[in-house]
Amino acid sequence: MQIDRLVKAIKSKGLPVALGLDTKFEYVPEGFARPYIEEGGRAEAVFAFNRELMRELRDMVPCVKIQAAYYELLGVSGMDCLRQTISAARQMDYVVIVDAKRGDIGSTAEAYSGAYLKKNSPFRADFLTVNPYFGTDGMTPFLEDCAAAGNGIFALVKTSNPSSGEFQDILTDDGRPLFMRVADHVSEWGKKMIGESGYSSVGAVVGATYPEQGAALRKMMPRTFFLLPGYGAQGASAEHLAPCFDDNGGGAVIAASRSIICAYKKTGGQDFASAARTEVERMKADIERVLPKACSRR
Amino acid sequence: MQIDRLVKAIKSKGLPVALGLDTKFEYVPEGFARPYIEEGGRAEAVFAFNRELMRELRDMVPCVKIQAAYYELLGVSGMDCLRQTISAARQMDYVVIVDAKRGDIGSTAEAYSGAYLKKNSPFRADFLTVNPYFGTDGMTPFLEDCAAAGNGIFALVKTSNPSSGEFQDILTDDGRPLFMRVADHVSEWGKKMIGESGYSSVGAVVGATYPEQGAALRKMMPRTFFLLPGYGAQGASAEHLAPCFDDNGGGAVIAASRSIICAYKKTGGQDFASAARTEVERMKADIERVLPKACSRR
Repeated sequence: MQIDRLVKAIKSKGLPVALGLDTKFEYVPEGFARPYIEEGGRAEAVFAFNRELMRELRDMVPCVKIQAAYYELLGVSGMDCLRQTISAARQMDYVVIVDAKRGDIGSTAEAYSGAYLKKNSPFRADFLTVNPYFGTDGMTPFLEDCAAAGNGIFALVKTSNPSSGEFQDILTDDGRPLFMRVADHVSEWGKKMIGESGYSSVGAVVGATYPEQGAALRKMMPRTFFLLPGYGAQGASAEHLAPCFDDNGGGAVIAASRSIICAYKKTGGQDFASAARTEVERMKADIERVLPKACSRR
Repeated sequence: MQIDRLVKAIKSKGLPVALGLDTKFEYVPEGFARPYIEEGGRAEAVFAFNRELMRELRDMVPCVKIQAAYYELLGVSGMDCLRQTISAARQMDYVVIVDAKRGDIGSTAEAYSGAYLKKNSPFRADFLTVNPYFGTDGMTPFLEDCAAAGNGIFALVKTSNPSSGEFQDILTDDGRPLFMRVADHVSEWGKKMIGESGYSSVGAVVGATYPEQGAALRKMMPRTFFLLPGYGAQGASAEHLAPCFDDNGGGAVIAASRSIICAYKKTGGQDFASAARTEVERMKADIERVLPKACSRR
């Protein structure tokens, strides 16, 4: 099961971090991009940038999170770049999370799931992020494909953005906010898919920008692995992340994108791959300070 | 503004229906598909099928709703098929709704919006369906692009699937179900974008399978145009649709996909385009019976 592979990869690297390839074309340094653009266009440059970053960081980082939106923005060639990035990540043995936040009625969710979560999917991911607003029948195709192929999903529970509370924090008739009602279902959906690691193939997206809610969710859903966006560019610190990990330093992976892939913008002259490495080293020290168990190679 | 163009197109055709190009490859008749598959693969066959249907129905149907999931399922060539289908629909003067249910934090929503709602978008739609779970800051990029380019969105409010109530109907602290809280925001988001037609560029997805909720929403949001899935294959009848229209027979467009594009499967021998036409004529009669004003060419 991919959830067990993810847990093992985090342990073996000693770093619970997903490299966020939320690669806007504008992030690619101009001098690096130029020859690729001449040859194949913007998408070609984005792929080359992603590949360099993945090569540089593969000994340190267990996992990549690829944000589909930036590839769709580049059109058909962008979708080919998504396919190539997934494929290169897989060849380098990264655990691959495609962050697409898909969700629809059952028959349509089946098509999304087929696009990302089957063995023969064109954009074959190990994990896909999904939006649970449709309820159980919209999730069933994803769950079935995960059960069949050993893949996983991360369902949105509490998102990292400033207005996430607008709907997610609304108090419901049992006195709890909506995101906890969603969390109940996410736990339930994952019950039959617990791996050897003790975690389920059905994970949750929990914004690191909301540590109190994260702490409450950590208690509510001990078997659920968390994908934690919000560290770095969105403002969450290592202290904010801590409540989302369990007592053994497990149960979560931190997604960091801009802070790593755009690190070169703050270092004046260092190439982007080396700057990314320096930033990952800084992150590792920062996380280790607060969460030593999460960074130990056990 | 595209919302005004949509309203006019519905009036001029006398039919408030969107042709749902939720085209699974398996829907394309084998004999029709074969030469296209040999030439360019499954996506080529899907595009040819879509084009035939659009050509056949252009004098009757004002609008197409293209379900992104089925194109993603076909991979990179599927995304090219999506691009081609959008482009062909535009050339035939259909109003184009891309049904992709995208939604994310602001910076990412900006990328999705750039992929679909700008003048130079690679998959340039007139309308995009969006998922509001992130709240206002996740919607802002879509709203800004709609304001700039005159395009529109349909935000999920009450979806058509059996388990849509699982979260959407949860009672909240003001005594109303969640979907009504979402509806409040959708109305608010659309306030500054009311067209000459009296309707806003910010519409709502309201499942025709829930007529009581549809009636309540129709009263709550008089300026909001509804996209109504659920007629036909999902079980909603013309009677179910009626409460979602306003007293003038306006304010909504019915999405119908499988019942039209797979009509040939029930007619034994009729070619798919003619069978689709016969089904649209049947639908028109069915809708006109209950909603004569919605079908009058005013």
